[in-house]
Amino acid sequence: MSQPIIFYDIPSTAAGCAWSHNTWKIRYALNFKGLAYKTTWVEYPDIESVCKEIGAEPTMVRKDGSPYSTLPVIHDPNTGAVVSDSARIADYLDATYPDTPVLTPAGTHTLQNAFRAAVHNATDPVIRPYIMPAVARILRPRSEEYFVRTREANYKKKLTEMEPTGEARETAWKECQAGYGKISGWIKEGDSFVMGDTISFADFVIAGELQWCMKAFGAESEKWKDMLTWNGGRWAKLIDDLKKYEGPVEEMSN
Amino acid sequence: MSQPIIFYDIPSTAAGCAWSHNTWKIRYALNFKGLAYKTTWVEYPDIESVCKEIGAEPTMVRKDGSPYSTLPVIHDPNTGAVVSDSARIADYLDATYPDTPVLTPAGTHTLQNAFRAAVHNATDPVIRPYIMPAVARILRPRSEEYFVRTREANYKKKLTEMEPTGEARETAWKECQAGYGKISGWIKEGDSFVMGDTISFADFVIAGELQWCMKAFGAESEKWKDMLTWNGGRWAKLIDDLKKYEGPVEEMSN
Repeated sequence: MSQPIIFYDIPSTAAGCAWSHNTWKIRYALNFKGLAYKTTWVEYPDIESVCKEIGAEPTMVRKDGSPYSTLPVIHDPNTGAVVSDSARIADYLDATYPDTPVLTPAGTHTLQNAFRAAVHNATDPVIRPYIMPAVARILRPRSEEYFVRTREANYKKKLTEMEPTGEARETAWKECQAGYGKISGWIKEGDSFVMGDTISFADFVIAGELQWCMKAFGAESEKWKDMLTWNGGRWAKLIDDLKKYEGPVEEMSN
Repeated sequence: MSQPIIFYDIPSTAAGCAWSHNTWKIRYALNFKGLAYKTTWVEYPDIESVCKEIGAEPTMVRKDGSPYSTLPVIHDPNTGAVVSDSARIADYLDATYPDTPVLTPAGTHTLQNAFRAAVHNATDPVIRPYIMPAVARILRPRSEEYFVRTREANYKKKLTEMEPTGEARETAWKECQAGYGKISGWIKEGDSFVMGDTISFADFVIAGELQWCMKAFGAESEKWKDMLTWNGGRWAKLIDDLKKYEGPVEEMSN
């Protein structure tokens, strides 16, 4: 490997710039594998054109059936490969750099895929009403405008009206805690990581979701401080245990 | 090991008697491990008293907060242990009989737990309107009366009115197919089992769900025959690959 991998991520005004759950998973993975990479920051309204330009395959389909692109995407100048979708990127990195630490230990490919789905099911529907307006607040102006417009069209609701208020507020936040409680309930007692002592992509999946919350809510927010207390401080410990794979996140230069 | 494990299961009028997804997971597991066991058949209205009598812990909590018992339960006369909940039984069997084939390979405990949750999320909500009335039809009279009465109170709906009809029928059944499609999408291409060549509890989780459908709908039903065609015949092949771990299911004698 002679040239750094180009890693496409979405910028924000939050400390450290990186905030997206899905790109964090790959940021962790690249650092864990010790692979040299360089971040190219792409604002939301530019994702489609950048992906088209580099030949990244769309990852998602809109309700009307049209495909669209999301980040993370990587471009590996050493092989010429352009890979989109965090799970496919993880597979690519394991396959292409077999002498680096493994994201998906042998035999666990299917289990790791199901793990991502299970984490998503447990946390995404309940945290979404809180995180969508919070994300809008940390994006830079061009991304913010795009994000608010497209998400409001999608949810048919003002983002500022998504977060539960009044009596529903406490119940809904407890459901977020219960969602993380489900994940905690799956983890074998005494284990620090999903696979015990072995770090795997599944840990970066959880940690990516946590980074998303920390960056969007703010490290000093009541919500994030509350999350750090959930499940006996398990999530605080996980973020701390994986701190060495966080960065340093390069400043925006592009 | 000198005495057979006592395995508590729910009878039916379906061929082979065994039909419950959760008990099937343990039936497969016991056969896979080659452990001697004897089935004690328990009708639904007797589950609570039988579990109380043998000291099996309740596994579930009703909406009103009261605990209740479910099968499978095992009583192992070799150790005196009484274990309820299929995942806890799988753990017990691996821990107590370490020289038999392993249900949960080292490092995969958390992933296997999440896998069960993911399979449940993918299939249970969509198949439930079809399977509940179908299960009622195969139960023996005492269980049928209990099952229909308690489930109808729970769903606040006649079981005979649960199955989608008219225009909703085709869409809803396609959602069942899509649910199994999700599981198929997690499985690494070319792999027969969740962990590749290695059979693990995760395979018995899927196969248990399939047995449930086959027994409740009927092996000759249109629905089951349709399911056998889903995902390139993957589920037909799985049931076939695991056939040697099915039984023989003993006749009801108690």
